[in-house]
Amino acid sequence: MATKVIKGGTVVTADLTYAADVKIENGTIIEIGPNLSGDETLDATGCYILPGGIDPHTHLEMPFMGTYSADNFDSGTRAALAGGTTMVVDFALPSPNQSLLEALQMWDNKSSMAHCDYSFHMAITWWGEQVFNEMETVVREKGINTFKHFMAYKGALMVQDDEMFASFQRCAELGAMPMVHAENGDVVADLSAKLLAEGNNGPEAHAYSRPTQVEGEATNRAIMIADMAGVPLYVVHTSCEEAHEAIRRARQAGKRVYGEPLIQHLTLDDSEYMNKDWDHAARRVMSPPFRNKQHQDSLWAGLASGSLQVVATDHCAFTTDQKRYGAGDFTKIPNGTGGLEDRMPMLWTYGVNTGRLTMNEFVAVTSTNIAKIMNVYPKKGAVLVGADADLVVWDPEKTKTISASSQQSAIDYNVFEGKTVKGLPRFTLTRGRVALVDGEIKPAQGHGKFVKREPYPAV
Amino acid sequence: MATKVIKGGTVVTADLTYAADVKIENGTIIEIGPNLSGDETLDATGCYILPGGIDPHTHLEMPFMGTYSADNFDSGTRAALAGGTTMVVDFALPSPNQSLLEALQMWDNKSSMAHCDYSFHMAITWWGEQVFNEMETVVREKGINTFKHFMAYKGALMVQDDEMFASFQRCAELGAMPMVHAENGDVVADLSAKLLAEGNNGPEAHAYSRPTQVEGEATNRAIMIADMAGVPLYVVHTSCEEAHEAIRRARQAGKRVYGEPLIQHLTLDDSEYMNKDWDHAARRVMSPPFRNKQHQDSLWAGLASGSLQVVATDHCAFTTDQKRYGAGDFTKIPNGTGGLEDRMPMLWTYGVNTGRLTMNEFVAVTSTNIAKIMNVYPKKGAVLVGADADLVVWDPEKTKTISASSQQSAIDYNVFEGKTVKGLPRFTLTRGRVALVDGEIKPAQGHGKFVKREPYPAV
Amino acid sequence: MATKVIKGGTVVTADLTYAADVKIENGTIIEIGPNLSGDETLDATGCYILPGGIDPHTHLEMPFMGTYSADNFDSGTRAALAGGTTMVVDFALPSPNQSLLEALQMWDNKSSMAHCDYSFHMAITWWGEQVFNEMETVVREKGINTFKHFMAYKGALMVQDDEMFASFQRCAELGAMPMVHAENGDVVADLSAKLLAEGNNGPEAHAYSRPTQVEGEATNRAIMIADMAGVPLYVVHTSCEEAHEAIRRARQAGKRVYGEPLIQHLTLDDSEYMNKDWDHAARRVMSPPFRNKQHQDSLWAGLASGSLQVVATDHCAFTTDQKRYGAGDFTKIPNGTGGLEDRMPMLWTYGVNTGRLTMNEFVAVTSTNIAKIMNVYPKKGAVLVGADADLVVWDPEKTKTISASSQQSAIDYNVFEGKTVKGLPRFTLTRGRVALVDGEIKPAQGHGKFVKREPYPAV
Amino acid sequence: MATKVIKGGTVVTADLTYAADVKIENGTIIEIGPNLSGDETLDATGCYILPGGIDPHTHLEMPFMGTYSADNFDSGTRAALAGGTTMVVDFALPSPNQSLLEALQMWDNKSSMAHCDYSFHMAITWWGEQVFNEMETVVREKGINTFKHFMAYKGALMVQDDEMFASFQRCAELGAMPMVHAENGDVVADLSAKLLAEGNNGPEAHAYSRPTQVEGEATNRAIMIADMAGVPLYVVHTSCEEAHEAIRRARQAGKRVYGEPLIQHLTLDDSEYMNKDWDHAARRVMSPPFRNKQHQDSLWAGLASGSLQVVATDHCAFTTDQKRYGAGDFTKIPNGTGGLEDRMPMLWTYGVNTGRLTMNEFVAVTSTNIAKIMNVYPKKGAVLVGADADLVVWDPEKTKTISASSQQSAIDYNVFEGKTVKGLPRFTLTRGRVALVDGEIKPAQGHGKFVKREPYPAV
Ligand SMILES: [Zn+2]
Ligand SMILES: [Zn+2]
Ligand SMILES: [Zn+2]
Ligand SMILES: [Zn+2]
Ligand SMILES: [Zn+2]
Ligand SMILES: [Zn+2]
Ligand SMILES: [Zn+2]
Ligand SMILES: [Zn+2]
Repeated sequence: MATKVIKGGTVVTADLTYAADVKIENGTIIEIGPNLSGDETLDATGCYILPGGIDPHTHLEMPFMGTYSADNFDSGTRAALAGGTTMVVDFALPSPNQSLLEALQMWDNKSSMAHCDYSFHMAITWWGEQVFNEMETVVREKGINTFKHFMAYKGALMVQDDEMFASFQRCAELGAMPMVHAENGDVVADLSAKLLAEGNNGPEAHAYSRPTQVEGEATNRAIMIADMAGVPLYVVHTSCEEAHEAIRRARQAGKRVYGEPLIQHLTLDDSEYMNKDWDHAARRVMSPPFRNKQHQDSLWAGLASGSLQVVATDHCAFTTDQKRYGAGDFTKIPNGTGGLEDRMPMLWTYGVNTGRLTMNEFVAVTSTNIAKIMNVYPKKGAVLVGADADLVVWDPEKTKTISASSQQSAIDYNVFEGKTVKGLPRFTLTRGRVALVDGEIKPAQGHGKFVKREPYPAV
Repeated sequence: MATKVIKGGTVVTADLTYAADVKIENGTIIEIGPNLSGDETLDATGCYILPGGIDPHTHLEMPFMGTYSADNFDSGTRAALAGGTTMVVDFALPSPNQSLLEALQMWDNKSSMAHCDYSFHMAITWWGEQVFNEMETVVREKGINTFKHFMAYKGALMVQDDEMFASFQRCAELGAMPMVHAENGDVVADLSAKLLAEGNNGPEAHAYSRPTQVEGEATNRAIMIADMAGVPLYVVHTSCEEAHEAIRRARQAGKRVYGEPLIQHLTLDDSEYMNKDWDHAARRVMSPPFRNKQHQDSLWAGLASGSLQVVATDHCAFTTDQKRYGAGDFTKIPNGTGGLEDRMPMLWTYGVNTGRLTMNEFVAVTSTNIAKIMNVYPKKGAVLVGADADLVVWDPEKTKTISASSQQSAIDYNVFEGKTVKGLPRFTLTRGRVALVDGEIKPAQGHGKFVKREPYPAV
Repeated sequence: MATKVIKGGTVVTADLTYAADVKIENGTIIEIGPNLSGDETLDATGCYILPGGIDPHTHLEMPFMGTYSADNFDSGTRAALAGGTTMVVDFALPSPNQSLLEALQMWDNKSSMAHCDYSFHMAITWWGEQVFNEMETVVREKGINTFKHFMAYKGALMVQDDEMFASFQRCAELGAMPMVHAENGDVVADLSAKLLAEGNNGPEAHAYSRPTQVEGEATNRAIMIADMAGVPLYVVHTSCEEAHEAIRRARQAGKRVYGEPLIQHLTLDDSEYMNKDWDHAARRVMSPPFRNKQHQDSLWAGLASGSLQVVATDHCAFTTDQKRYGAGDFTKIPNGTGGLEDRMPMLWTYGVNTGRLTMNEFVAVTSTNIAKIMNVYPKKGAVLVGADADLVVWDPEKTKTISASSQQSAIDYNVFEGKTVKGLPRFTLTRGRVALVDGEIKPAQGHGKFVKREPYPAV
Repeated sequence: MATKVIKGGTVVTADLTYAADVKIENGTIIEIGPNLSGDETLDATGCYILPGGIDPHTHLEMPFMGTYSADNFDSGTRAALAGGTTMVVDFALPSPNQSLLEALQMWDNKSSMAHCDYSFHMAITWWGEQVFNEMETVVREKGINTFKHFMAYKGALMVQDDEMFASFQRCAELGAMPMVHAENGDVVADLSAKLLAEGNNGPEAHAYSRPTQVEGEATNRAIMIADMAGVPLYVVHTSCEEAHEAIRRARQAGKRVYGEPLIQHLTLDDSEYMNKDWDHAARRVMSPPFRNKQHQDSLWAGLASGSLQVVATDHCAFTTDQKRYGAGDFTKIPNGTGGLEDRMPMLWTYGVNTGRLTMNEFVAVTSTNIAKIMNVYPKKGAVLVGADADLVVWDPEKTKTISASSQQSAIDYNVFEGKTVKGLPRFTLTRGRVALVDGEIKPAQGHGKFVKREPYPAV
C-alpha cells in the first residue's frame, strides 16, 4: 500500500518536542525519525506534528423536540477535521424506558456519515433492572466504558441520587467510569419557573437560572457518590471555580476525579447574555452558561496545574431558527453551541500564545489526556509507531478570523465570530487519510469508524 | 414578692467576667451589683454565675415504632436542670400528611410536665399547600421561627431537594430560619442495605453506613439551597471536618451559616462502636455516628475560631431494651443517645479546663449564641437586668464521676459513664426558682413554660 | 455632680438592641433603663446609642523626615470625635537604639492635647537586652500590653525573623500581644528599587511595589512565629485575600489570630493610583496600598463571618505639600492617609445600609471587639453601668457629603472627598462630656486621658 | 558494536504499558518492538521494563566537620544501581565566599568514581557580584540549570530573603530554576537553643526543633519570592501537609511549583525518634524530620493527584560513629539518612502494591517527571529509541527483607531495616551496561558520566 511521509516538522506530544518525520501506511504510523521518504510527502516545514485532537463531548444530530441539532455526523466531523480534531465522542441518549442497546443502534445509524473516527458514551437516563443488565452488554460487547448521568434537566434526562449511586456502583463492577452533567436540577427548575413567573423570559434569564453555586453543589455531590461507589468520576463541562474547587478538594484527598472545561467557558464570558440582540444572546445559551472572568482564570489555572485535565466543546449546534423556539420563554431555547472547528485554534491562541500553557500541555488537554482517560491511548492521542495516523500538521503562523461564513458547521452563526486565531492546521489526517489541506476539506463520508473502548483495569 | 440574691460570686457572660451579686424577683433579674440583699440568699462564694444553658436540640418523648424515647419532658428537663441547662428546644415532628398545627398540639401536650422552659422547632417532613400555609400560622401565631428538614431517614422523615428549596424560600418570606439534619439519605439507605446484605448487622455497621462524606455532601447541598433561597441556615449535629469545611467555606463567602457540634461528637470517638459488648455499642448508635480524633480536633477549633457556634446534645434517650429492637439488624436500633445532664460539665471539663475555650466562650456556645440564633436573647442567655432568672451557680472545683446510677435520665446507662468531670452547678435556677441544690433536684413539674420565638427581622 | 440623661433612643451594643435611656454622672454610666431623668437631657429620639468608636491604629504627630504627620493629638482627636470615635490607640516608635521608655515619654508629651481618651502600642524597632528588659516595665508599669513589629520598611523600622521571634516569646512571658505590619520588606525594597531604576517613579509604582503576595506571605510568617512562641497575634491593616486566607487558615486550626481591615481598603480601590493627577494619587499612598474589588469582597465577608474582627484607619495624615517630598521618587512619598473622622459614617453607609453588617456587628467591629482585644472592655466599648460614658448618639437619617473643606483634620484633602454618607453622630460624648453636637465640635484640649491596658491573663 | 536485547518483558513508562522487546547498542536504545534479537539477551519474562530511576537529591561524600558523608560516588552509585536508580543529582556546596566554579571542580573530582550517570545542582550559599556573574558560567558552560537555596542552617548555608530574591531573579534571567530547602532557619535555631538549654539534648529534640509549621512557612515564603521573580520553583523534601498546602495553593493559582517528597517521609514516621535506643533515633535524624501519619497521607495524595511530582531520597549517609558526634547535643548529630538503594522497592511496595499509585505513576515520580523537570528528558527517564539505555528490568514478584547486612551503602545500618519489599530489579542497566543482575552488582567505577542540563526555554 502507498505510504505517506510528513516531512520537515517538529513532533510535539504531551511530553516531547523533537524534529522528526512521520511515515504512515495503512492508516497507521509506521516510522518516526529523520529523513524518511514515502510515496507521498506532506510538507511540515515550520510546523508542529501533533496527535489529532479528540473532542470527548459532542452531540451530533441530537434529537430535540421532534427535530435534531443541526450538525450531524457529516457536518460535525467535517468541522472537527477543519479544526484539527480527528475523533469525537458522542452521547447515546436513551428515551425514558428505552433499551440502552436500542438507543445505541440509533446513534450507530447516524454515525455512518462520519468523516473521522468516533466513539460513544452511554447515558443513564432512567434506572431499572433492564438498564442494570444492559450496562454489562454495553461495556463487554459494545466497546463503551463511560456512562453519563444528568443531574439537571428535571422531568427529562435527570436522575436521582439513588439512581446515580446504583449506576455508579454498577460502573465499578464493570470497569466503567461514570460521567456527570453537574447542576442541581431541582433548584434550576424552580429558579427557572420563578424567573418566568416574574416576566424574565429572555436569554439572560437562562444564566440567572443556573448560577455557579448549583454547579458547584452538584459536582461536590457526584464526587461523594463516586467515592462511596469506589469509582473514578469524570465531570463534564466544568465551568466555574465552585465546581473546580470541589474537584481540587477531592483530588487532594487522593480521589480520582477529572474535570473538563469547555473552550467556550475558557474564552467567552457572561456579558454575552446582556447583548441587546435576542438572537446573539440566545445563540450562546448552553448549560452551564458562560461565567465571569474570575471563573475563567480558575479554569486556566486548573489546566496548568493539572487539577483539570481536558478541554472539550459540548458541540450541540442549533440554528438561529431553532433557537427561536424559545422566544418569550428562555427555558425553551435549545441548549447548545458550536465549537468543534474552533476548539484547537482558540485554545492555542488564548493558551499557548499567551504563555498559559506549553505546547505539550496543549497536546495533553486536547488529545492525550483524553485518550488516556477514555482508555484509547495510545491507539489515539499519540505520535507513536503503531498508533493510528490521526495527526495534525499545525502551522503556528497561520491566522484567520473566525466567521460563520466560512465554517463547516451547518449553522448560520458562530459564537467566536470575529475572533482572530493564530495557529491552525496545515493538514489534518484521519487514519492516514488527508482530510484537510490548508483550510480546504477533502470529504469522505463514512471514512470514520467506531472506536471500541475497553473496560478499565481494576486499580 | 420574695426576692433572692445570689451572693459572692463572679458573673461570667459571653463577654464579661466580673464580681457581682444578682438579685431576683418574680422570676426575673432585677439588679446586678455589689452588696445586694434579699429575702433569700444563695451563696456563690468561689463560684461563677452563668446564664443557664440552652440545649437547642432535644427529642423528649419522641414517638418511635409505637413507643417513645424514654426521657419525656419530666425526666428530660430534670436532667437538664441537674446539668445546668435551663431551657430546651424540642422538635415537633408531623407524620406524613399530618397538619403542622396538629403535630404542634401533640408536643404541647407532652410538654406540660416540663420543669424548665422550652420551645419548639417545627419539622417539615412533607410538602404541600397545607404545609406552605400552616408555616405562616406556626411563625406568626405559634411563636416558632425555625423549621427542621431531614436530608436522611429515607422513606420516613426525609425530604427532597425541591421540597427543601420550596420550604427554605417560604422561610425567607416568613422571617424564619431553616435547619437541616445533613446526611445524604439515598446513599445511607443504600449503604445500609448493602451492609445488611453482606451480613454486617451489628452496631458498628451503623457507623460504616454513615461515613463523614455523606454528611459533608449534604451540608454543602443545604448551604447552596439556603443561599439560593436567601436565608441563613442552621446545621444541626455537625460532626466532622467535611461538614465543618463546607460551613467555613460558606461563611468566608459571607453566607450566614451556623454549625452545631454535639457534646458527644466533641468527646467520644468511633472506637466505641468496636466494643465487643453489643449493648455498649448499640447504646452509642446515633446519627451522625461518633467520628475519629481528627474530626474532634476540627470541631474544637471551630468553636474557638467562631466557625461553629453552638454545642447541643440531640438528647434522644432509648433504654437498652429499646436499643435491642435492633438486635440482628442495625438499621432497627433506635437512633439517639442521652447527654442533657452532661453537656455543660463535659464541655467545661474538656473545653475550659484544657484551655481550648475561655469561660466566656463556654457561655457563648452553651447559652448566649444559642439564645441569639434562636431569637430569644436577652430574655434567655443573658445575665442582665430584665432577663429571665435562668441562672447557674457554677462551682469550678466540684467534681463527680458520671454514672447512670445517679442520673436523672430515665435510661439505664450513660454514654459518658465513668468520665470524671470538674465543674458542676451548685445551684440551677429556672425563672428564679431554685431547681437544683448541690446535685439534688427540687422538682416542680409544669413549672416550665413555652418560650415564644419571634420571626427574624429582615436583614 | 450634675447628671446627664440621653433620652428616647435605642441602645445598640455588640449583642443587644433595646430602647432605653442612659444616665451619666462623673464621666461614667450610672443607669440604663426607661424614663430616666437628670440635670441635663440629650435628645436621642430616632437615634441609636452606641459605645463610642475606638480606633486601634493611628499615627498622630508621627515624626517623619524632620517634620511630623499633620494631624496631632489636637486635630486628630477632634476628627475622631466628629466621626463618633472616642478613643484612639497610637504607636510609640522608638528610634534605633532608643529606650522604649524614652520614646514613650515623647508620645506622652504629644498626647497632652488630646480631646478624647487614648492609649499606646509600643513598637519594637530594634532588639537587644535593653529592649528585652524595658518590655517588662512597659507592660507592668506603663499600662501597655501590645507590641508592634514592622516586617517592612527595610533599613528603618523593619525587624528580622529572629528578632520577632525573640520579642514574641517575650510577649508570651509578659502577657502581652504582638502586632505586625505584615509585608515582606526585603521584596518590597527590591521591587521598589527596580521600579525606580526602570523609571517608574510615580505614585502608581507604590502599588506595584507592594503586591498582595508580599502581604500574604508576611502575614503567614508572622502567624507561624506567633504560634511557635505561644502567643496570639494581631495583624494590622489586613488588606487582601492572601493575608485574610492566612488568618482564616490559622483560625481554623485553633490559633488566636486577629485581622484589622482599614475603612480605606474596604471602600477604595487601586484605580485611585491611576488618576492622572499626581497629587490625587500621592494622597492615597499608604502601605499596604489600596487593592481591587475582589480583595474588598474578601474583607467584607471576613467581618461578617468573624474571621476579621476590627475596622481601623491607620490615620497618618500628610498634607499635599508633605506628599510632594516624593515627587519624582514614589519611595519618598510619606505613607499614610486620613480617615479618623470618616471611619464610622463610611462603615455604616457601606456596611450597615447595604445589609453586609448588622448594627450589632457594626458596634462590634468599630468598638467592642477592639476593647476586648485591647483588654479595656468593659471600661470602653460597652454601654453598661460602670462603663466610661464614651457614647455616640447615632442618627441613621443624618447625611452629609464628605469634604476636606469641612473636616477637623489639618490636611487639605480627604481621600473620601465627595462620598455621601448616611448615618452620623448627633452627639459624641467622651467620658460624659458632650464633645460634638450635630456636626459642631465642642473642643476641650487635654480632656483626653491615657487608658492603661493590663496584661492578658494566661490562657 | 555488540547489541543487547531485553526480551519478553512489558515496557512500562509514565504513560504506556505494552509488551515489547528493547534493543540496545552503544549505550542507547536503538529499537523497541516485538521479536527483537541481538548479541546478548536479557530475559525479562514476567517483568516490567522501566526507565531507570533518577534520584534528584543526593549528597555523596558531602563535607561535614572535617570529614565526609560516608557514601561517596562509589558506594552511593552502587547503592543506586542496586535499587534500580541509574542517575543521581548531587549538590555542589560552595563554602562561604568560595567561587561556584571552584566548588564545582571539587564535586567533579569526587564524581570520577561514579558507577552511573549523575548531574549537579549548584547551591547558592552566599551572595555577591562574583556569585551573580559565575551563575551565568554555571548555566551556560557547565550544564547546570538548578540552584539550591537553604532557608535553614543558620550561620552556615542559610541565605536571607533578599539574597534569595536576587538569586531567583538571576535564575529567571538565565533560564535556570531555583530550589529551596524550606524551613525557617531563624526559628529552628532559636527552638534548638531553647531545647538544649532546657536539657533536651537527645535525637527526639531534633524533631521538636523543626515542627511542620516552620517548613510550611518557609515553603510559602519561597513560593512568593519565586512568583515575584517570575521563575518556577522546586521545593526539595516536602514532608508535611503545611508545605504541601502551600504548594497546592500556589499551583491552583497557576504558579509553576514542584514538590519532592522523600521515600523516608512517605513510609516512616516520627515515632522513630521516641525509640529508647539513642543510636536508633539518631540514625533517623534528618531535616525535615519524619512526620506523623496524617502528613504521610497528604504526601501520598499529592503524588496521586499531581500536586507533588517527584520522589527522592536526600541520601546523605552517616555512620553510627559519625552520628555519635551529637551525643549530648542533638544539634551536632549529622543530618541525613540513606535511601538510594531502597527508594524504588519501598515506593513500589507501599505505593503500587497498595493501589495508591499506578505503575505508570510510579515511573513518573521516580524517573520521568524528574527528567522533565531537570530538563534531561528524553535522554533520561524514557524508554524511547534514541534515549540512553538506563533501564530497569523490574520483577514484581521478587521480594527481600531490607537489611544493612546486605546493602551497598557504606554505613552500618539502614533506616528501613526489617521492611519486606516486593518488587525489585532483576537487571539494572546504565547506558546499556548491565550493572545489576538479580541482586548482584557488577561494578564499573568511573563508568558514570556527568549529564549536562540545558537552560529552560523561556515560557
Ligand atoms: Zn451537559
Ligand atoms: Zn453535553
Ligand atoms: Zn438528626
Ligand atoms: Zn435530632
Ligand atoms: Zn503599617
Ligand atoms: Zn500604621
Ligand atoms: Zn535539605
Ligand atoms: Zn539535601
